[in-house]
Amino acid sequence: MQELLLIGIGTGNPDHVTRQGAGAIRRADLILIPRKGAGKSDLAGLRETIINAVTDTPPRLSYFDIPQRRDDDGYLRGVDAWHDAIAARWQAAIGTSPEAKVVALLVWGDPSLYDSSLRIAARLDPQPRTRVIPGITALQALTAAHAIPVNEIGAPLVVTTGRQLRKNGWPQGVETAVIMLDGECSFGTLDAAEFDIWWGAYVGMDEELLISGALDQVADQIRTTRAQARAEHGWIMDIYLLRRRN
Amino acid sequence: MQELLLIGIGTGNPDHVTRQGAGAIRRADLILIPRKGAGKSDLAGLRETIINAVTDTPPRLSYFDIPQRRDDDGYLRGVDAWHDAIAARWQAAIGTSPEAKVVALLVWGDPSLYDSSLRIAARLDPQPRTRVIPGITALQALTAAHAIPVNEIGAPLVVTTGRQLRKNGWPQGVETAVIMLDGECSFGTLDAAEFDIWWGAYVGMDEELLISGALDQVADQIRTTRAQARAEHGWIMDIYLLRRRN
Repeated sequence: MQELLLIGIGTGNPDHVTRQGAGAIRRADLILIPRKGAGKSDLAGLRETIINAVTDTPPRLSYFDIPQRRDDDGYLRGVDAWHDAIAARWQAAIGTSPEAKVVALLVWGDPSLYDSSLRIAARLDPQPRTRVIPGITALQALTAAHAIPVNEIGAPLVVTTGRQLRKNGWPQGVETAVIMLDGECSFGTLDAAEFDIWWGAYVGMDEELLISGALDQVADQIRTTRAQARAEHGWIMDIYLLRRRN
Repeated sequence: MQELLLIGIGTGNPDHVTRQGAGAIRRADLILIPRKGAGKSDLAGLRETIINAVTDTPPRLSYFDIPQRRDDDGYLRGVDAWHDAIAARWQAAIGTSPEAKVVALLVWGDPSLYDSSLRIAARLDPQPRTRVIPGITALQALTAAHAIPVNEIGAPLVVTTGRQLRKNGWPQGVETAVIMLDGECSFGTLDAAEFDIWWGAYVGMDEELLISGALDQVADQIRTTRAQARAEHGWIMDIYLLRRRN
């Protein structure tokens, strides 16, 4: 392998793919497709849909299973060991096509934002030349769906995780925060009377769900909707923007 | 007009356009194109290139001049009056094609991030149904070009402006900040020994310039490169990521 392409594909809408992303897919000799067990949360089918939508002559696909992450030795150590394990799977999947010069991965959202691909790529030996093709993030799909700006005029915003919000409370110095990777409705740790929320699940997809309003008015509706959708689909990915009320 | 499409087109690379963005351009009856005087900073030509790249039957184009913003009555009041003035220009440009049902604007980057389009659209009378099509932001084009993640593992980040950095210093509670809309190299207000920087100008375009390193090592190189490029092209758009050194 000479070159590794990390291609941002957006958040589940095949039309999120950019012309640059489509071109990169066509240029690949081999595409690695992650699998995550029985559920549909790996979206392997979606990746195949995207590939077939942009080329009549799909490259070879090589599937690999995503290992489980273990946090019992601490969060950051768990992530580190998990990246090692995924890199070994990539290496094995690449090894099945030693003639492939350009290898690609289709990355959910954008490879730069709360994504492991660049850190996993750095573990490959020998090191390929790695190129990143940006993609639409869940953050943008959320604000587009609600038709709202992410920032107030000239004002800063924080992008953070459910874990951080639970641990550290509302971030200092900002009126706006976008919360990602939150499996626990961590907005529940805030004083609901102080915030408005714009929530979305499966943003950009046919299954998209949107709820917005005063946090004290809609928090329970979000919890219920989220639990039902997760039970129905077997997985959920959601994101929300919180803004302090003036 | 029944519907207004705010289409994110990315940062100057026509291949940043998504399949969704291309479809929206094809669906438009009329596209409004901003002009900004003699320079090339309005990138009207780029917008025409993108339109022609995605459709053989371009819709009608209507050009309007972007008025000057005045800050002498305070920044936020200046922005407010400026949005009023732009909305009047949109209204006049739309008025030239009363038969157009679907009107579109091609928005630099993404319509949600440090962009005025949604606030200007809210001033139109009668109110159209407004739809946002997300696009690649300069932030993503920057991190893709440098092939770096924007966040450290599980950690928060701030997105802010040069003005905020000058006024309020380094944002609290984060090790990473992305600075946009900075005409004054505001990183100069920080203790350069404490930070690494990843800087880019014209990110995603043929003219792309990238510099990264320890801030105390590369700050002068960035200032010089930026001044030369601005003089050469007549305009510049740049962005940078700062990360506190461990």
